[in-house]
Formats: sequence, C-alpha cells, structure tokens
Amino acid sequence: MSLLSSISGPRDLDALNEDQLVDLADEIRAFLIENVARTGGHLGPNLGVVELTIAIHKVFDSPEDPVIFDTGHQSYVHKLLTGRQDFSGLRARGGLAGYPQRSESPHDVVESSHASSSLSWADGVSRAMTLTGRKDRHVVAVVGDGSLTGGMTWEALNNISDDNDRNLVIVVNDNGRSYAPTIGGMARYLNRVRTGETYRHLRRGSDDLFRKLGPAARAVYRGVRGGTRGFLSRFTNNGDLYSNLDIKYLGPIDGHDLTALIETLEQARRYGAPVIVHTITEKGRGYEPARKDEADQFHAVGKIDPVSGVALGGGGAPAWTDVFADELLAVGEDRSDVIAMTAAMLRPTGLLPFAQKFPDRVYDVGIAEQHAVASAAGLAYGGLHPVVAIYATFMNRAFDQVLMDVALHRAGVTFVLDRAGVTGPDGPSHHGIWDLAMLQLVPHIRIAVPRDGERLREELREAVAVEDAPTVVRFPRGSVSADLPAIERLHDGVDVLARGDSEDVLLVGIGPMAHVAVEVGERLRAQGIGATVVDPRWVVPVQPSIVDLAARHRLVITIEDGIRVGGIGTRVRQVLRESGVDTAVDELGVPDEFIDHASREQILEDAGLTAAKIAQDVVAQVVGTRIPVARASAETDGVGDVPHWSDAQPR
Amino acid sequence: MSLLSSISGPRDLDALNEDQLVDLADEIRAFLIENVARTGGHLGPNLGVVELTIAIHKVFDSPEDPVIFDTGHQSYVHKLLTGRQDFSGLRARGGLAGYPQRSESPHDVVESSHASSSLSWADGVSRAMTLTGRKDRHVVAVVGDGSLTGGMTWEALNNISDDNDRNLVIVVNDNGRSYAPTIGGMARYLNRVRTGETYRHLRRGSDDLFRKLGPAARAVYRGVRGGTRGFLSRFTNNGDLYSNLDIKYLGPIDGHDLTALIETLEQARRYGAPVIVHTITEKGRGYEPARKDEADQFHAVGKIDPVSGVALGGGGAPAWTDVFADELLAVGEDRSDVIAMTAAMLRPTGLLPFAQKFPDRVYDVGIAEQHAVASAAGLAYGGLHPVVAIYATFMNRAFDQVLMDVALHRAGVTFVLDRAGVTGPDGPSHHGIWDLAMLQLVPHIRIAVPRDGERLREELREAVAVEDAPTVVRFPRGSVSADLPAIERLHDGVDVLARGDSEDVLLVGIGPMAHVAVEVGERLRAQGIGATVVDPRWVVPVQPSIVDLAARHRLVITIEDGIRVGGIGTRVRQVLRESGVDTAVDELGVPDEFIDHASREQILEDAGLTAAKIAQDVVAQVVGTRIPVARASAETDGVGDVPHWSDAQPR
Repeated sequence: MSLLSSISGPRDLDALNEDQLVDLADEIRAFLIENVARTGGHLGPNLGVVELTIAIHKVFDSPEDPVIFDTGHQSYVHKLLTGRQDFSGLRARGGLAGYPQRSESPHDVVESSHASSSLSWADGVSRAMTLTGRKDRHVVAVVGDGSLTGGMTWEALNNISDDNDRNLVIVVNDNGRSYAPTIGGMARYLNRVRTGETYRHLRRGSDDLFRKLGPAARAVYRGVRGGTRGFLSRFTNNGDLYSNLDIKYLGPIDGHDLTALIETLEQARRYGAPVIVHTITEKGRGYEPARKDEADQFHAVGKIDPVSGVALGGGGAPAWTDVFADELLAVGEDRSDVIAMTAAMLRPTGLLPFAQKFPDRVYDVGIAEQHAVASAAGLAYGGLHPVVAIYATFMNRAFDQVLMDVALHRAGVTFVLDRAGVTGPDGPSHHGIWDLAMLQLVPHIRIAVPRDGERLREELREAVAVEDAPTVVRFPRGSVSADLPAIERLHDGVDVLARGDSEDVLLVGIGPMAHVAVEVGERLRAQGIGATVVDPRWVVPVQPSIVDLAARHRLVITIEDGIRVGGIGTRVRQVLRESGVDTAVDELGVPDEFIDHASREQILEDAGLTAAKIAQDVVAQVVGTRIPVARASAETDGVGDVPHWSDAQPR
Repeated sequence: MSLLSSISGPRDLDALNEDQLVDLADEIRAFLIENVARTGGHLGPNLGVVELTIAIHKVFDSPEDPVIFDTGHQSYVHKLLTGRQDFSGLRARGGLAGYPQRSESPHDVVESSHASSSLSWADGVSRAMTLTGRKDRHVVAVVGDGSLTGGMTWEALNNISDDNDRNLVIVVNDNGRSYAPTIGGMARYLNRVRTGETYRHLRRGSDDLFRKLGPAARAVYRGVRGGTRGFLSRFTNNGDLYSNLDIKYLGPIDGHDLTALIETLEQARRYGAPVIVHTITEKGRGYEPARKDEADQFHAVGKIDPVSGVALGGGGAPAWTDVFADELLAVGEDRSDVIAMTAAMLRPTGLLPFAQKFPDRVYDVGIAEQHAVASAAGLAYGGLHPVVAIYATFMNRAFDQVLMDVALHRAGVTFVLDRAGVTGPDGPSHHGIWDLAMLQLVPHIRIAVPRDGERLREELREAVAVEDAPTVVRFPRGSVSADLPAIERLHDGVDVLARGDSEDVLLVGIGPMAHVAVEVGERLRAQGIGATVVDPRWVVPVQPSIVDLAARHRLVITIEDGIRVGGIGTRVRQVLRESGVDTAVDELGVPDEFIDHASREQILEDAGLTAAKIAQDVVAQVVGTRIPVARASAETDGVGDVPHWSDAQPR
C-alpha cells in the first residue's frame, strides 16, 4: 500500500517518520506527473512545493489554522493531503478544480486565484482570529516571489507590520519565477540571496549531502550544523528584503529539505507574531523535462507524454495568441514607436517573438497590472504607442488606471486582452467575462472584438492607429475561429455576414459569437424568417449602421460571450433608444453569476448561447404571436392587452 | 512690486538670488493663505511644499523636464510658478482647477489625482525619453509619504530599479501624513529617520541657525558643514527604506531649507540614473491655525477666516457623512462583530466617532484600497462584518477585489461610498459617477442609494444584516437632502413617493435624484400627465415591484447621478425585457464623458438632470405625439411610419 493512499487528511502525516515523509514526497511527485500528464494542468508550480506543502500540513493544523495559497495554482499537493486524490477529472466539469475551491473542502480558504492577494487575506483572517478570541490559531500564507512584485503585497506587509498581536506566518515560495523569471530590483535581491555563499553552503549541506546520510548520521549532521535555529539566527532581522517593515524574517531555507522546513516552520509557529519564512524552491523539481524547460518549467501544460514531456495532440488551427503574436511583430516592423508590455506573461500573451526581435521595446513589469497601465500612459505621453498584452480577467485589476491614467489623458494605448469571454477549465476567477461591460464604461474608449484571425490582424492595425484614446482588442482562449468572410463591409466598417429575403431579425454577433449568429440566421431563414447577420467589428462606440439596420428590422438580437448585465447589448439598445429607434432588443450573454470550471462549450450551452437554442427562442417569439410589438400602444391601455413576444420566450 | 508677480514662468526664478527666493517663499505662503481662505481648497499640503516646488523649478527645466505631482493636490505653488496667479475662481467653473490640468498649462502632465500613480507615470515617461533620444531630459516625480503606502509605488519602484539608463528623480515629500498620520511599518521607519539624531542636528543647523546668518556667513556655514554632498554621502545607500531596490537614495533633507534642497536636487540631476531624494516637510507650514490642527493640518478647507482659520458660513443641514458616522456608531453598539475600515481617511469618511468609541475595531490601512477590500474578505471569513468606508471614486481602484475576493467568496462586507455621483469642484478624477455602473457588474452584490438621512440610516442597517454578499450604500458629497417621506412602502421595500390620477409615466428616482423625480412628477401632473414617483431604495437587484409598476405605465424614466452607460437604468430596462414588460425606458444620467470642475448643480443642469428639463422633455414626447409607442408595430412596416416620442426628444 502506498503512503499517499493512507493520507485522508493532514493529521495522518503525524503517523509518518521523516524517512516516510521523504518517500511520500517522491510518491506525490510521481502521482502529479502521471496524472497531470493525462489531464493537463499546472505541473511545474506543484512539483516545486511538494516538501513545502507536506511540512506546512505537518506543522500547522488546517483548517483550524487556515492555509492560504496565493494564486492557488500550486494547491495540488494540498488537495492530495486533504482528502482529494481523484485527479482523473481535474479541471473538467464534475472533477476537481485547478485552484482551491471552498465547495470541495473546508481546507480551502481563498479561491480568487488572482496573484498577490494572499497577504491581505491573511492579514484580515488573522486580525479576525485575534478579535474573536482565537489568537491561539495560526494563519499561513504561501506566496511566490512572483506575487511579491504585485503592489497588494506591499500594502499588506505595511499593515501586517503594524499589528504584532497575531499568529501569522508568511511562507515565501521563492523559485525565481513568476511564469517567466521574476523581474525587478526585488528579484535581483532574492537572486543574490539564492546564489550567496551562505545559502549555497547550506544547500550543499542539507540537500546533496543530507540525502546520502542514514537516519543516524542525519541526526549527527543536524547537531553539528548547530540546528536550524542557530543557522537562522544569523539571518533574523538581517535579511533586508523587508527590513524596514520590522517583520521577523527567517531564512533562506532549502524548500526541498523536509527537516529544515519542519524545524523552521515550528520556530515560526512558536514565534507569536507575524513572521516571514523565506524558502528557496525549484519549479518543476524532480521532473527532468520541466527542469530543462527554460521558459517556464512546465508552468501549465496540456496533455503530455509523462516520460518525455512532449505535448500530445496539438496541430490543428493556430491559437488566437499566435495570430496576435505574428501580427504584432509585423506592426513592430512598420512602426518604431510601438512598444509592448506584459505583466509577467511574456510567452502566454504572445509577446515572445516581438521581444526577440525588439528586445529594447518590450517591458515585463512583473505581476503589476496597475503599474503596467499607468506607466503605459506615461510612455504614450513620451510619444510611444504601448500595446499592453494581458489576460482579460487580470484587466479587472486596473480599471481605475485605464479610466484615470489612460482615458482621462487621451493616451493612445492599446490593450490586447487574451483569454477573453468564457475560458473554461480554470474556473470562476479566470473567465474574461467582465471585460466588455467594465471597459465600455470608460469615456472615449474604443473596443474591437475580432471574429476570426483575419479580423484580429486588421483590428489590431486599426487599434494602434488611434492616438487619442485607449483601444481594446479582445479575443478568447484557444484555437482561432474559422475564417468568416463578410458579404459586404458597410461605410463604418460593420461587416454584413448574411442577409435574408426580408428584414425581420437583426443578429449582432460580437466577435467569435458571429459564428453562432450566422448559424442562427441560417436556422431562421429555414423557417421563413428573414435574418440579417452582422459583426460590428468595433463594438464601442456603437456604429451608425447598426442603428440604421436596427431601424429596418423588427427585432434585434445581440450575442456576446461576456456578461449580459451592462454588456455590449445594453449599449446597443441605449444608442438605439437615443437615436429614436425602438426596435426590441434581446441582449444575449453570460448570466450574472460566477461560473465553475467546465469546457467553454459546456458553459456556453448552459447559458443558452448555442445556435439551436437561440434560433428556437426567436422562432417561438415570432411564430407564437406574429406580433413583434411588446409595448402597449396608443390604442390600447396597458401591457395586458397585447400579446408579447417576450411572454413566449423562456429564460 | 512683489517678487511673485515677476514670475511668469519657471525660468524667471533664475534671476532671483537666494535671499529673494526665501522672500518669494514667504510671499507665496501669504498668497496661498489669503486666496484659499477666500475660495476653499487644499491649504495644508501646499503650504508644505513651497520651498520644495521653488527648488524643483529652479533646478529642473519644466516642461522639457516633466514634473509629475502625485495626487496633485499640492500643485498650487507649481501653478503660481508656471504663469497661473489668478486664484479668484479656484475650483469653480471657469477658474483654475484644484489639480494639475493639461488644458491649463504645458507644465501640467498628470491630472489623474488618484494617489500612488506618479512613479508609474515617471517610469513610463522616462523610458520614453530614453527610447526617443531625449535622455538628456529629466523626469521628476513628487510623491508624499502617504502615497508610498499604495502598492502601485512598490510596483513602480521595482521596475524603476530595473533600468538605470534614464534620468528619473523621485522626490519624497515626507510630512508624516496622508490625510491623517501615515500608517504602517513604512511610516514607522520614516518617523525614525525624521526624529533621528542626525536629521535633528541637520535641521537645527540648516533651519533655525541658517536663517539668522547673513549671506556671507551662510556661505561659510555651508563650507563648514562640508557641503550637502558630504552630508548626503553618509546616507547614500545607507537608508534602508528601499535598499534592496538598489535605487540611489539621498536624504533626508530639510524640505524648507532652499539651499539644501537646491544643492541636493542639483546632485540628483547630475546623477544620471534613478534617484530618490527624501525631503522632510511640514504640512501647513507657516500658518499657525494649520500647524495647530492635529487632525490633518488643514488638508482641505472651505472658506475660512485667514487670520484665525475659523470656518465661515457652515451651520445648515448636517452632511451625509455625519449621518453615516452617527448611525455606524449606533450599529457598532448593537453589533460587536461590525468593524470599520478606511484607506487613510478616517475623518473624511466619518469613521472618527466609531474609532474613538471602538479603537480596536477600526483599521486604517493607508492609501491601499485593494488591500482594504481583500483584507475585508479575510475579516469576514474570520466571522466579522467589515464596513469599508471610502470615497466612491477610489472604489474604482478595487473592482477586482470586490469581485474576486468579496463576492466570489460570498463574504458579508459593506461598502459605504461617500462623495458618490457628481461631486463638483474637484474635477474629473473625483466624481463618483462610475460606481453604480461598475459595481452592478458584480454577481450577488446589493446596492442601496438613500435619498435622505433617514433612508441612509435604514439602508445601512439593512446592508450590515446581509452576511452572504457584498452590499453597497452610496451617497453624495455635502449636506444631506431634505427628508422625503414615502406615501407607501411596497412589499419589497420600494417607496412610493407620489401618485397621479392615471398611470402614464413611472419616474424612478435613484437616491438623491428622488427629489428631482418628485418635482418632475408635480410638473407632469400640472400638465395632466399621470406620474408615479418611486425610490427603489435598493437599486440592485431590481425590485419586483418596479417591474409590476412599469408594466402598468406607458413610459419609465430612470434618473441617476452616475453615468448613463451601463447604469442602473440599463439594468431596470433589461429586467423589464426579460420579465416580458416592454414599456419604453429612458435612462437619464450623466453623459459618458470626463466632467471638469464646477458646482454639482451646474453639472447636473448641463446633463439635463433638472426637474424643469426632464419634465419639459417628457411633455414634449407625450404632447407632441400622443403616441407613446416608438417601435414599429405589426401593422406597419418600419420605423419611418410611426411618429416617435424620441424624435421629439433633444439629447
């Protein structure tokens, strides 16, 4: 029987001796490689925290001692140690989430999965513990060095240092990486610590040598070394990472040395006030293909061959990201004023080719979206045109900066939002479903949503040509949609994709939803309902020809893959009303909810955003009543007198 | 002739000798006290930076060397030195803005006025200077110690330290205050520097003594002291505020010693790489009433007597803030689990009485909105109910945290947004007009907008009773609106404020706009149009009786003091449509624009949000056509055939 299968909760670790814990770590690594290879997921980060997570659960008593993982993509080991060992459906509907999720386990506390928030959470939870008479409990935050580049951690540390009356342990999981290597002065400092003489000596001692000793010899060795405590005291209040913050600092510790980890965490547990434990870990530890991957140590993988690490499947259409990467490179060749920015995600956002070609014209600012946006405004003031490439969900971090720093100053900055709309397997925190509704609130902003690769190239070109306002180009995760040519481009750039014999229903497909709109149109025409299908290309501001077309139709259906509330549909309807066009508008989109992990297709189907469902609803409205006016007219006295399309419309 | 009137631009400073510069500083102080006493404005911060601003403009060459003020409320001296000396209309329409504003002067660069963004701007601008061949130019950022508590500054410093190939001078204007004293470990560190032996010695030497010497003796003194440079070298790379960031550090300098300031800034200018200049200043310097004000040194004042500093006028209705302060205190007495949080604005947000009564239950987190919100989620997890009191405009900083940290975790956190809607004299960056549109995008959120003091008390009570979702209570700046009793409270809490003989028009007044709605109703009834007026009290989610009422009326008018785009009106209309009610909805609100400083009344009038204007438009629609249906009906074929209400409605 394996050791891992004997662990149904953290307290089962108490039955294992040190050698068994080391064996357990080996088992967990094998488990992770085998399982994640099969499903895809975050491999590198979890391989790096095997010993660290074991030590934390050995020393602290979750869930009474809450353990908070920053970002949460390194919580697989935590899941394995807290009763969740069926990884077969990882990140798929019905299977385990890829991040902590409270509905799975009381051991999961924070599921927001946006970086740099764990210290704020820990600050709040530990203050609550003290205020409510549970000061004996400990709160543990596990935060990567990458997350420390985010300003929220600074805000939190500044507060944590203000209040010593609580048990708060901050474990810095320092692997020198965000996705790519961590940037900035802080990273350079950490790097000096990692490569310094003292740490190298410790590591040689504890890691290489220690593993070769038998249990007895290990005990002797620890004695000779004078104990972790003696070693640490030389560093206490001497590591100047956050020295001005007066938070006790222990470390650095080899994050793969279980004994050192447990001893240090015990010391931290007994300290009685906030303490930072600095551990040095290796992303992708114990898996040769990950160690050799210089870009991101297999940060997140699809299905792979577990032995070679080679990706399985693949081929097929290029990703949206690839099309963007390619076109941006071409833009960069044409215009020397275009520069690119990323928040610690050079490769995932497609900036690598640009960075290789124009190394002086790309800035990785760390996990620091607010800074990225505000400094982009500064770059624009200085005469450049920044292209800020970011995942749509992380744009939520910088709404104020888009509004106040970019738009108020009429700065020409282009935001390229990848993973926009419903993403899927990463769950509620990673859907990019708020971007359109949030960004359309920004005065002067212009938002493009390409429907296919050709339009992405074209709209990116149009976006970087705007010099007096923020522009946005946003597209989903995954393979680029099939090319969908227009049958006509109207004077304001709106593409007509299909027409019917009569002008009954106008279908406005936003970006990739244009494909769905085209199929809805086909189904309607098959039922004798005239349907015009358009892709506005630029959805904000609402284009004049959308208004003209709406005036000629009897019903408008807008289809977007963001939330309905406050979405583009509401904007279309508002512009129609103020233009004197009162054609009925149905705004279709994602419901006003947090959406669990599942495939994009499953989620869109649940939201009723399939051609079959939309066509069925429209037909029911039209055929059920033949009366496309739902509002009370002058001839009648109230709503009750007139049959309603909407009455027949199930929602 | 005064020295000040001889200064039409920064280069005029070159003609003044050191004694004249000292005299100029005195003149400027007298000017500020006299003028700001007359108009109101930010007095304390500007009195604190007189010498600092003179020195910066003496040493650097704005606008070719851009000077960026963090928050910008300390830019009055800068305005005086850059050709703007008519302060008679300060913060009023047609007069000078209270913050930097590009349309006033090429010397103004950043007008966003939200704290902690200047270093990001400076990072961007200086990188652009280098990339575009203007590396000889300098970028100067002036940032307060309070702003350093904001995480964006950490993000920026981390980046600034990464790239030494530019001329970037960061002037820390350290007065130990945000609005109130700056909090956190960083503040404690700065305080130790300020009160340390070396700095006290310097200050004694340079400030008290130096002033008593004649010009010749001053030169001797500077020689004896070994020059600022010698003094500074002891601190260079020795002040550990940001030592791990490898940014050169000069200071601390007495921020009221012009000679020391000029010498140090010259040194910084010559350094050729990013450098921090730490200056110690005194908020309210030279004005006895401000110096004596322990709360915030006259941070911002209304009209005052210039000699005594006593506020003029006053009396009248209490402010919304006072009503909130009073009711929160009562809530705190009833419920020990309610705690209060502020981002450096204990007094302005009304938390002072609560803090005095319950000192252990209030947290000032510094200018750190993101941390405030995320740590509130942690406090809620720990069993408490946080009330986060914040200005509406600064809520834009923490959208992601409301969404991902609070709402996703179903945390019971109440946000109390002061200065919501159109604020007025503080200009585009301080209007709270985006809050409703932004926050309604958050799933499960509930938003209350009280119309008067009584409703504020009541809705605050209802808000803190919600334990599974974020709640929001938002109200405007200034005196609380007159009490407006309901004629009926409907089952779901919607208040009916007035009814007509017939149900023609439903007026939905959001919060303080309910008063306008009531007056519109009176005007409509005077014209024979039946008008029902309601205050939904809770605007999100849309209450069922709004839907019921809308179904019985022929036109719905929603009136809010936030932006129309994506506002509450769009939500009402969307819920009506999905409920099968297609009564026409006109959403009235603030236009999708940045709005310059003026009075709230002027701005609302410009936006057409007065009772006279709204009533006139509704009457024109109804009387002009008598046909309240604007959409094409089954009997007609298109929009052109039917007269439109909206045709008659000027927008």
